[in-house]
Amino acid sequence: MAKSLNIGMIGYGFMGRAHSNAYRKVSNFFPLKYQPVLKAVCARNPENAKAFAAQWGYESIETDWKQLLRREDIDAVDICTPNNLHAEIAIAAAKAGKIILCEKPLAMNAKEGEKMVKAVEAAKVPNIVWYNYRRIPAVTLAKQLIDAGKLGRIFHYRAKFLQDWTISPELPQGGQGLWRLDSKAAGSGVTGDLLAHCIDTALWLAGPIANVSAMTETFIKERKHNLTGKVEKVGIDDACAFLARFKNGALATFESTRYARGHKALYTFEVNGEKASLAWDLHDLHRLQWFDHRDEGILRGWRSIHVTDGDHPYMGKWWVPGLAIGYEHSFVHQVADFLEGLAKNKPVGPTFRDALETQMVCDAVLKSGQTGKWTAVG
Amino acid sequence: MAKSLNIGMIGYGFMGRAHSNAYRKVSNFFPLKYQPVLKAVCARNPENAKAFAAQWGYESIETDWKQLLRREDIDAVDICTPNNLHAEIAIAAAKAGKIILCEKPLAMNAKEGEKMVKAVEAAKVPNIVWYNYRRIPAVTLAKQLIDAGKLGRIFHYRAKFLQDWTISPELPQGGQGLWRLDSKAAGSGVTGDLLAHCIDTALWLAGPIANVSAMTETFIKERKHNLTGKVEKVGIDDACAFLARFKNGALATFESTRYARGHKALYTFEVNGEKASLAWDLHDLHRLQWFDHRDEGILRGWRSIHVTDGDHPYMGKWWVPGLAIGYEHSFVHQVADFLEGLAKNKPVGPTFRDALETQMVCDAVLKSGQTGKWTAVG
Amino acid sequence: MAKSLNIGMIGYGFMGRAHSNAYRKVSNFFPLKYQPVLKAVCARNPENAKAFAAQWGYESIETDWKQLLRREDIDAVDICTPNNLHAEIAIAAAKAGKIILCEKPLAMNAKEGEKMVKAVEAAKVPNIVWYNYRRIPAVTLAKQLIDAGKLGRIFHYRAKFLQDWTISPELPQGGQGLWRLDSKAAGSGVTGDLLAHCIDTALWLAGPIANVSAMTETFIKERKHNLTGKVEKVGIDDACAFLARFKNGALATFESTRYARGHKALYTFEVNGEKASLAWDLHDLHRLQWFDHRDEGILRGWRSIHVTDGDHPYMGKWWVPGLAIGYEHSFVHQVADFLEGLAKNKPVGPTFRDALETQMVCDAVLKSGQTGKWTAVG
Amino acid sequence: MAKSLNIGMIGYGFMGRAHSNAYRKVSNFFPLKYQPVLKAVCARNPENAKAFAAQWGYESIETDWKQLLRREDIDAVDICTPNNLHAEIAIAAAKAGKIILCEKPLAMNAKEGEKMVKAVEAAKVPNIVWYNYRRIPAVTLAKQLIDAGKLGRIFHYRAKFLQDWTISPELPQGGQGLWRLDSKAAGSGVTGDLLAHCIDTALWLAGPIANVSAMTETFIKERKHNLTGKVEKVGIDDACAFLARFKNGALATFESTRYARGHKALYTFEVNGEKASLAWDLHDLHRLQWFDHRDEGILRGWRSIHVTDGDHPYMGKWWVPGLAIGYEHSFVHQVADFLEGLAKNKPVGPTFRDALETQMVCDAVLKSGQTGKWTAVG
Repeated sequence: MAKSLNIGMIGYGFMGRAHSNAYRKVSNFFPLKYQPVLKAVCARNPENAKAFAAQWGYESIETDWKQLLRREDIDAVDICTPNNLHAEIAIAAAKAGKIILCEKPLAMNAKEGEKMVKAVEAAKVPNIVWYNYRRIPAVTLAKQLIDAGKLGRIFHYRAKFLQDWTISPELPQGGQGLWRLDSKAAGSGVTGDLLAHCIDTALWLAGPIANVSAMTETFIKERKHNLTGKVEKVGIDDACAFLARFKNGALATFESTRYARGHKALYTFEVNGEKASLAWDLHDLHRLQWFDHRDEGILRGWRSIHVTDGDHPYMGKWWVPGLAIGYEHSFVHQVADFLEGLAKNKPVGPTFRDALETQMVCDAVLKSGQTGKWTAVG
Repeated sequence: MAKSLNIGMIGYGFMGRAHSNAYRKVSNFFPLKYQPVLKAVCARNPENAKAFAAQWGYESIETDWKQLLRREDIDAVDICTPNNLHAEIAIAAAKAGKIILCEKPLAMNAKEGEKMVKAVEAAKVPNIVWYNYRRIPAVTLAKQLIDAGKLGRIFHYRAKFLQDWTISPELPQGGQGLWRLDSKAAGSGVTGDLLAHCIDTALWLAGPIANVSAMTETFIKERKHNLTGKVEKVGIDDACAFLARFKNGALATFESTRYARGHKALYTFEVNGEKASLAWDLHDLHRLQWFDHRDEGILRGWRSIHVTDGDHPYMGKWWVPGLAIGYEHSFVHQVADFLEGLAKNKPVGPTFRDALETQMVCDAVLKSGQTGKWTAVG
Repeated sequence: MAKSLNIGMIGYGFMGRAHSNAYRKVSNFFPLKYQPVLKAVCARNPENAKAFAAQWGYESIETDWKQLLRREDIDAVDICTPNNLHAEIAIAAAKAGKIILCEKPLAMNAKEGEKMVKAVEAAKVPNIVWYNYRRIPAVTLAKQLIDAGKLGRIFHYRAKFLQDWTISPELPQGGQGLWRLDSKAAGSGVTGDLLAHCIDTALWLAGPIANVSAMTETFIKERKHNLTGKVEKVGIDDACAFLARFKNGALATFESTRYARGHKALYTFEVNGEKASLAWDLHDLHRLQWFDHRDEGILRGWRSIHVTDGDHPYMGKWWVPGLAIGYEHSFVHQVADFLEGLAKNKPVGPTFRDALETQMVCDAVLKSGQTGKWTAVG
Repeated sequence: MAKSLNIGMIGYGFMGRAHSNAYRKVSNFFPLKYQPVLKAVCARNPENAKAFAAQWGYESIETDWKQLLRREDIDAVDICTPNNLHAEIAIAAAKAGKIILCEKPLAMNAKEGEKMVKAVEAAKVPNIVWYNYRRIPAVTLAKQLIDAGKLGRIFHYRAKFLQDWTISPELPQGGQGLWRLDSKAAGSGVTGDLLAHCIDTALWLAGPIANVSAMTETFIKERKHNLTGKVEKVGIDDACAFLARFKNGALATFESTRYARGHKALYTFEVNGEKASLAWDLHDLHRLQWFDHRDEGILRGWRSIHVTDGDHPYMGKWWVPGLAIGYEHSFVHQVADFLEGLAKNKPVGPTFRDALETQMVCDAVLKSGQTGKWTAVG
């Protein structure tokens, strides 16, 4: 019989939904020792909290996260607030002995992140950060192939995350749904929001990054604030591209923008190894592109692997070959892995410490964007 | 406050899971007057029923579907049994006044199907058949575009559903998980299992089919039975292709097989109209291919529409643009539409009557395959 | 030192250009014992003949093909006239002892074709028909893979050739550039023009076809004649689809139309074998799609082979890997192979006899389209 | 009647073939006032020169390019030597009053390039550099669309040129066919060989580049020399990536390598504008990807334009819609445009001066790669 794990959710936006769906769904598909229970959702506005609780089946609501942390019936806290609240909540939750699942990026910057890591490690509470793309089956398969040595020495890594939703100068910034455009709430623009995903995957797949050279740009310099109505300077980076060298000698290019007309959420990466290469694309997330130099010469070509077979990562739990799952399943997989780790008392990445590494690369990127100099990570 | 709709599920296989998931999930994403409640699951073997109930949260079990139909706390019956049981159960359920959601194909043949239609229409019970692909957002979008007249006169329709999972002669037939290979349980092979999907979509998109010329083949003539261990003649069609003429004058080709090496579940269709064409592919189900002759001449080309925007069918309820949903969501959409129809007291297709049309085409196809003659539908 | 082969070209349209280009170019890329010399071009209108001769470097012109056949300085005759003249010219050319290169389809029908075969075989003149697609490198590679047994038993073959250039009812029929729409000059519509290509490739790749069931359609029933200005009944098939059984037991579907909006010249074929499958598409003619079931399970997928390597058919003679050649090169390859065959005194296919087989399938298809019955080939 | 333009070709390698093919072919397809005549080919080794002349129909040979320049029957000199000879020959040719067609990159560096520009401008001789990719029809179409304002303000440009042919450490460097690996003959590695193409296109499409930040790498540090057999330090850049800012404010990333397993000659670029985006890929050179935000919302998607229609750039001269041309045709188009410019007495780009701009970007890139600093162009 599965043991209950009582979840306290803080925040109720896009990520609150994605995580709630994962908690509700995981036990239907994955046999686990722990069963998440949607115990409480916390939002400042009680109406919002009640509506969300009703929609998702949370048993109770809170309007003060500190009160949530005091509740003994809460085992795990899920932090889905804007970035500027992650550190304070997470540190308090660690002190309260709660398991913590924190939205990415870990923090506003590495300094904050370090404190968070210290807090969870001192409190010895299980912790994870929602870099969910690691658990898209095609991405997990990429990891398995690299770890199995099938690529050999890695020469090149390239990633980008392209969107186009902020091109209009009429788009306001700030407030509910738009806090990602407000540097005070978000810390940075595409670097923390999008490149952080690219960096997390890159570090996971290809190891640590040594140094970076970046450029950042804010194309629209002023926008109306959504809540105040005042026209204010835009503080975030609209676009950021950087060169990097991995410690293993591989070269990398990274790019992110919200001004790439025609791309909604085009997160792609490609890894070129001595013996093989692979590539992935969030827009067709169920496919992994694979090239193997060991194939017979006249038959070499990029294979499009439809990652939906029973022996592909996670896929044995879903439908039958050929039937794709979607974006939201990456969160289900993360919950499944995390709960399995809990049962085995083993940490499951990306931990806060893992996410701190990503944060340090982000910091180096932003610094390099300002100074125009190659910048070492950490 | 949503009203409960108590579901009694009969069967617990692949489709039992897909439907259960839809019932559990629909209210989290769609605001509806009815809320499905997983009241009971029915399976002959109580252990199987219990395990399924535990996994999916059904409140109770039954081992006799007749008993389930007698229960007053069951509002709707979901028939997920092998095809040979559809008619008997559905007719009894109609008599018992239950709402019916029946797996496809409707029946073993059109004769059975007619009785089922009579039964539900006499009993005036809401009814629907799980031709779920209509509610993949890209397919629904195709329907909207055709209905809006964007294609003009339709000249051509072509569909195929290609699989490769039965190529090995070692694969047994019959029994749990393999009843689709047993003609007594399934009625036919690829015609009822796969072409029925193609035909349902085709009738929905392009109207009635007048007549067909088909060929069928059973490549592996004998297989061991999975339960008895005896080598027996294979009774199903391994492959079936047919030519068709729509009543509107359009020409069509249809093909299905389980011997197309390299294809797992490649259901594709394409419609060529006077002004525009469109195409879809289950392996990349979140995309619709679109060609519009009205585009500026030098810029004409097939567009790959990533059907994930808020103004695409159903997608406003899910995530954000660029983030794909999967196969299972088509069932959620069907439940959502069906429940909305219930609330408005309006039938929602494909009803039993709609599915009977598909069945009549299947019958004509199988008959033409035997006689070698062009065969009129109905 | 290469020996001259004096070419007499009859006709100066689209194919006259394609062949002339091939003759001019072949020696720059292929080391051959024979060197084509553009000796004479024949057209009824001397102005047209002169203009074509000037553009392509033909040394002389003729206005009467019988006169061309009488010339002793002509070694080989290339027949690029409308289909209704092929037989008469080819039979006369054979009697005159000329080598013959004849445009496809071989004849207006199999009866004519048989006479042509008899004539060339009686005269023992080298002969070939311009089914050029066999010599697109990706198609030739497909042939090599099938012949090497890499597919194993073939279960399915499917081909289509889709165009959209005759959708407008305003398009006239008949005369220069439009004779393909005139049944008196062309014999048939898409069957002889487009399906003949599909059939030639199919017979070459998968062996003889036993019987067929076809449907044909003429969507636009009347068109103005381009020369007379009179509105006349359209005699050709605008669209044709057929089912076929190969003698080896494989099932096939074929389709061709000029009413498939969005497709310019989409000739595609796919072959599904027990062990592997392959597919090709004229719109991306430099690629072969390849699926091999022997690949490691989790890495199986369709490979897109960019057929531009030095060890791919013909490609060692052109540029470097990655740099594609185009449509016209298929003709260069046919000339190269034909001249090599001449030097070795070996027939090179598709000979007239090979093309007669295709013609017999076309005849069976057209007959089946009229009778509505399965029709045996030959 | 076309006027002869006598060509003297210096070099006989890969590019000698590509250019010779273009000269031979151009008049068959393009109506021009000038007709190229293959007058002489020059190579140090007379056997090589003779063989090349025989294969391509050059009327005579030379073994000393200075002698070629002295010949009065030579109107135009085509420089196909390794890069280190471009400057000397071009300057002498200009002094001799010859028209000059020079292979890319223009020179070993911008300093050399400036002298060359001065020489041709002082001598007022028509001049062009073989950045042939401008004249792939899909690329020319991209230029037309940008010039027509269809993209609006450009935000992003990204280009890469990926190859994999030097991954093996066994590959020697230097000498015939391998001089591109020898820094003394080539000047640089991928920067001059591959990125120069990317930069030429970028400057043409999006205007001047202001500054760059680059990284370069030589993965294999030593290779055997192909002629001497001695193991020597590798002097070229195996890989180079750089960030750039255009003067118009657009951000760019560029990357090139010969260590990207699976890519033969993957030159791709993408331009993101306010209103539309476009992308191109040398591996499928006949297609242009196009996204237009002005399309109806639910129908927006990337179009794959098969650039083979009669109203697409250059394509009216070739075959019929749907039939692709290849790599070599870009050279034919360049000759056609250049000869048309000659007839109209108008310069046709890329002139030496245009190519000097590309050279200056290359120099800045290499310098930035060494210094690790953002470097201004020019």
